[in-house]
Amino acid sequence: MKAVRLHDYHKQPVIEEVPDPALASPLDVIVRVGGAGVCRTDLHIIEGQWAGAMNPRLPYTLGHENAGWVQAVGSGVTNVAVGDTVILHPQPSCGQCLACRSGRDMGCAAGTFPGVSDQDGGMAEYVRTSARACVRLDATTEPAEVAALADAGLTAYHAVRKAIPLLPPGSTAVVQGAGGLGHIGIQVLAELTATRIIVVDRDPDALALAAELGAHSSVRSDGDNPVDAVLDLTGGQGADVVFDFVAEQGAESDAWSMTAAGGSLFVVGYGGELRIPTMALVGQEKNVVGNMVGTYSELVELMALAESGKVALHTRRYPLDAAAEAFEDLASNRVRGRAILVPSA
Amino acid sequence: MKAVRLHDYHKQPVIEEVPDPALASPLDVIVRVGGAGVCRTDLHIIEGQWAGAMNPRLPYTLGHENAGWVQAVGSGVTNVAVGDTVILHPQPSCGQCLACRSGRDMGCAAGTFPGVSDQDGGMAEYVRTSARACVRLDATTEPAEVAALADAGLTAYHAVRKAIPLLPPGSTAVVQGAGGLGHIGIQVLAELTATRIIVVDRDPDALALAAELGAHSSVRSDGDNPVDAVLDLTGGQGADVVFDFVAEQGAESDAWSMTAAGGSLFVVGYGGELRIPTMALVGQEKNVVGNMVGTYSELVELMALAESGKVALHTRRYPLDAAAEAFEDLASNRVRGRAILVPSA
Amino acid sequence: MKAVRLHDYHKQPVIEEVPDPALASPLDVIVRVGGAGVCRTDLHIIEGQWAGAMNPRLPYTLGHENAGWVQAVGSGVTNVAVGDTVILHPQPSCGQCLACRSGRDMGCAAGTFPGVSDQDGGMAEYVRTSARACVRLDATTEPAEVAALADAGLTAYHAVRKAIPLLPPGSTAVVQGAGGLGHIGIQVLAELTATRIIVVDRDPDALALAAELGAHSSVRSDGDNPVDAVLDLTGGQGADVVFDFVAEQGAESDAWSMTAAGGSLFVVGYGGELRIPTMALVGQEKNVVGNMVGTYSELVELMALAESGKVALHTRRYPLDAAAEAFEDLASNRVRGRAILVPSA
Amino acid sequence: MKAVRLHDYHKQPVIEEVPDPALASPLDVIVRVGGAGVCRTDLHIIEGQWAGAMNPRLPYTLGHENAGWVQAVGSGVTNVAVGDTVILHPQPSCGQCLACRSGRDMGCAAGTFPGVSDQDGGMAEYVRTSARACVRLDATTEPAEVAALADAGLTAYHAVRKAIPLLPPGSTAVVQGAGGLGHIGIQVLAELTATRIIVVDRDPDALALAAELGAHSSVRSDGDNPVDAVLDLTGGQGADVVFDFVAEQGAESDAWSMTAAGGSLFVVGYGGELRIPTMALVGQEKNVVGNMVGTYSELVELMALAESGKVALHTRRYPLDAAAEAFEDLASNRVRGRAILVPSA
Repeated sequence: MKAVRLHDYHKQPVIEEVPDPALASPLDVIVRVGGAGVCRTDLHIIEGQWAGAMNPRLPYTLGHENAGWVQAVGSGVTNVAVGDTVILHPQPSCGQCLACRSGRDMGCAAGTFPGVSDQDGGMAEYVRTSARACVRLDATTEPAEVAALADAGLTAYHAVRKAIPLLPPGSTAVVQGAGGLGHIGIQVLAELTATRIIVVDRDPDALALAAELGAHSSVRSDGDNPVDAVLDLTGGQGADVVFDFVAEQGAESDAWSMTAAGGSLFVVGYGGELRIPTMALVGQEKNVVGNMVGTYSELVELMALAESGKVALHTRRYPLDAAAEAFEDLASNRVRGRAILVPSA
Repeated sequence: MKAVRLHDYHKQPVIEEVPDPALASPLDVIVRVGGAGVCRTDLHIIEGQWAGAMNPRLPYTLGHENAGWVQAVGSGVTNVAVGDTVILHPQPSCGQCLACRSGRDMGCAAGTFPGVSDQDGGMAEYVRTSARACVRLDATTEPAEVAALADAGLTAYHAVRKAIPLLPPGSTAVVQGAGGLGHIGIQVLAELTATRIIVVDRDPDALALAAELGAHSSVRSDGDNPVDAVLDLTGGQGADVVFDFVAEQGAESDAWSMTAAGGSLFVVGYGGELRIPTMALVGQEKNVVGNMVGTYSELVELMALAESGKVALHTRRYPLDAAAEAFEDLASNRVRGRAILVPSA
Repeated sequence: MKAVRLHDYHKQPVIEEVPDPALASPLDVIVRVGGAGVCRTDLHIIEGQWAGAMNPRLPYTLGHENAGWVQAVGSGVTNVAVGDTVILHPQPSCGQCLACRSGRDMGCAAGTFPGVSDQDGGMAEYVRTSARACVRLDATTEPAEVAALADAGLTAYHAVRKAIPLLPPGSTAVVQGAGGLGHIGIQVLAELTATRIIVVDRDPDALALAAELGAHSSVRSDGDNPVDAVLDLTGGQGADVVFDFVAEQGAESDAWSMTAAGGSLFVVGYGGELRIPTMALVGQEKNVVGNMVGTYSELVELMALAESGKVALHTRRYPLDAAAEAFEDLASNRVRGRAILVPSA
Repeated sequence: MKAVRLHDYHKQPVIEEVPDPALASPLDVIVRVGGAGVCRTDLHIIEGQWAGAMNPRLPYTLGHENAGWVQAVGSGVTNVAVGDTVILHPQPSCGQCLACRSGRDMGCAAGTFPGVSDQDGGMAEYVRTSARACVRLDATTEPAEVAALADAGLTAYHAVRKAIPLLPPGSTAVVQGAGGLGHIGIQVLAELTATRIIVVDRDPDALALAAELGAHSSVRSDGDNPVDAVLDLTGGQGADVVFDFVAEQGAESDAWSMTAAGGSLFVVGYGGELRIPTMALVGQEKNVVGNMVGTYSELVELMALAESGKVALHTRRYPLDAAAEAFEDLASNRVRGRAILVPSA
């Protein structure tokens, strides 16, 4: 089969022929790929930024946002069958450790992250995964339309879902960063709460899209001081919850300052450093909440939203052979929404 | 190996030689049994009361409260190794359905209940189970001491754990029925809350044991009217939470009447019928909470309590060959605490 | 001023002149009534059904769903000022007992229910209430449009809000009874969750309105067996949450049977008796949840929904002098939505 | 009456005669002081550190940890009566703002903090407070024994209570700082959870007391690296919850590093600055939780623990006239436990 393989850091991955993956253990599932999202993390992998943390043996196949159709199943697989349409949780988990048993899939002691860690990903005609990564979809769902929900979508959904009890009617939420994750976060907030949504971004197009998706107010982060703008919009109080999808280059500090007394800052992006006087934590009883991808159950829930049309991704499709073009378009900010590789296209 | 086998309903099970169980699938685990609890449910099985619901093919081996040492593991097992001391969750689960993925193990679509449903149980020298049923214990823990926590203990723990947020200091809980489950419930309440514990039972010995284990007040259910007694002890308010381990022969109605406005009745026992005017539910904003066994994580937690000496079972041990005597002692109420079959004794 | 006064049970209330209410304690607030909802409870009061429980001294003024404008405030009032538009929580509370201090306003040891208990209600030009009953509204909100949210709306909101954590995307809720409370419950469900909503009612008009308000499926309760219909719609599983706004004449039993294993029945209506074998509670781990009106904070939240246009009541207005006509129309089921008395009309 | 009054910053307060306080509003309560805790905050007030934030008009009476007997009540007071033994929540609240209505007393928009903010405190024979600050105690409770629970105790209780759901059996908690607050935190943890408690302090006497109160392991913070020590004790994982009662001089950074992946850092002390790379928040899904004093309901719960002997303070009593000696002993670290001024001694 054809696959998009990384041979050396700092060089573009190449499309080449490799053997089809085969079932190797009883819970294995082979999926015919219908869509594989191209993510900024892929650019970081190529640049070698994940080499230390993940240590994959090169060459290997990229692609950690995958959906498709079940091609073959191991003897122990009971949740999906050949022919099923599926989306894949990005981190197959063991199902035997205590984290798995408590529903904390991302805490799995034996978790892998194919396409990032040392396992082949889904930018290929077929990918090997495990039963516990497979979420069965309606037969009519098109994998290329939903693939990017597997990681980017799930991450945004997870953070918003955790915050729901903090966002009753009359409350205010800030979404800082209305890009790939943020614009899904806005849709989920609009569907699952009646909170007032303020969006902060420097890109006027992103703010315009946010307004269409349900945001009530928008703040240009490169114009007025965004903290002052949010305080103005909230009578000087700040927001009950701030979702920070940026979390670098000063945005993390703004996010903290926009958070009301008694409120919570949900950090989703990364790159910067948060500096908080302990007096501010205590005197205002504020919280900081870390967020990392999401659970299998949350992916099931997100797909229920997607299949009922309540969450939608803007996607641009590329044939597998055009992977280099997709990477380049992403690197040059020429992709509105999400680039998706489609092997059969 | 030797096993306690039921050949016909309404006849005593027999001890006979059967082949040792063998690994049949990659997640299978063979356990050398160190202790198998004898439970009132076993008497009900013999009397045929579970024949319809569970439909086991006879003959089969009884025993659903099991602990021992790992004898062999399938190729896919990662959470336990040969030689480990283990206690077995009574319902092996699939790990692939949505209930399993959400941590609701008892809701597993493919769950079995060996020794009750159509799978051999643990009243034998060896038992076959699955990785997802095995909780690893300290090497020094003696299986016969803890085996009965697998089902009776877990059921009591599950109900109490769910109620903890309802039982802050200054609150009151009633435990109705201080037998096998109830006396574990009292210990868990005393360890995990500072609630005032009122115990209702007809047996003065059970009430005396309850007082030793942490109960603050006791009510003889065959003497004074137990509802009046609880109302007297609570200034006419009733208890914030009532745990009903009896739930038949009028106890279920008493339990409801002992529950305070805004409070919750946790039903654990069964047999009777609860009749509640909807006006009483609404006007006093009271709740009724069903409880069924518990999750794997809860069994892990309960074993942490047991291994630190905070929860203890009174047990009486019988060699496997004396199973008939154990059944008879239980049927005649001659067992204080729990009868345990010990194959190697 | 004019007021709608009940002089004798089983006789229609009369419109008569009475002295204006005056401030009697530092937390008192006098409200000029802009709208007073006419509720089926008023009919029950007239019929003497609440005489025993509430024991009001006759004659007294009816009306427990009130909104208007602040006319005067006591010396200790800080949350509203003369001229403010307000809606009144139906049960003024003391703010000093432990229930009040925990945010459980309906549990207030000293709570009164003006218009039902022994205090004059709001079917008059003015009503006396307390600061702790007043929720300040936008100046532009018209009291007559929202008055019925004070009790009927709050009761529906309270039940739905409690159930939100049980209703993630992919779940199913049943609303049994799409009348005054139910049709608000449907709107709140549609705004605050993405659950699938099945409505059960015998009235085709009510079902049609429910569909407009966000219901996804409807079941005629006088046609097919409603339990079978709900099971059909849920693959035989039943609903995760059933809201029973009827709870009499067999509906309460249907509601229980429609509830899935692991699910919860929220009882809001009353009149019937729920009969549940404890085996069914335990074996399926189901819950029954009582619901009574709601808290002050919940009324604030509901008004945020109403003022942003997300929850709307169908109302029909009557001048205060036409109170008899309004009672008669309600008794004869000639009111679609809610009858509202408007003193200044 | 006699009172301990601060006339100038940087000078010792003086004991002088002032008029007795009188009822000024309907919810006022006059309390005859039985004990007033001397707190490190009092030293900070004298040094002028709170002058900016609180801006009290000098001279005024110190003392924010008060208990005693009700001497007089305003016309609107219903929760206590003359003669009742009471402890005073340190921040009287209005009962009318939305924070109060939601049970978030410390968020009260109109809250004052007598003895710190611009109101006379309790280092006097009498103090004026409000009904909503009074918690009624058993008549036999001695105010001087419990006074310091009003603020120091409540703060520790509040943080631990919030963390209970995160600390099931088998979990681990670290208490950093086993002084006034920490040693109450340890007692509350031991009573309300079965978590393993690791205490970190530089003072061997504090560690010895901690062990008596229920700590399972201790770490000398001035000896071995405390982070390494905690990691060693937790198999390299860190603690599920870290309570940081120090939060300055590097302790805040240690506390973060001791927190396990998926765990939470509860900050109670203050003075330092927490610096966290957003990558660490996200990659390990960790949380930081601010804590400020506690609610009225929590003080009621804490007093239930205290009155049943489950939480005890070590106190040293001084007559009111010896206030200067008490301040000096505290400043010189000569007080083991808590200094209490007793007007009638």
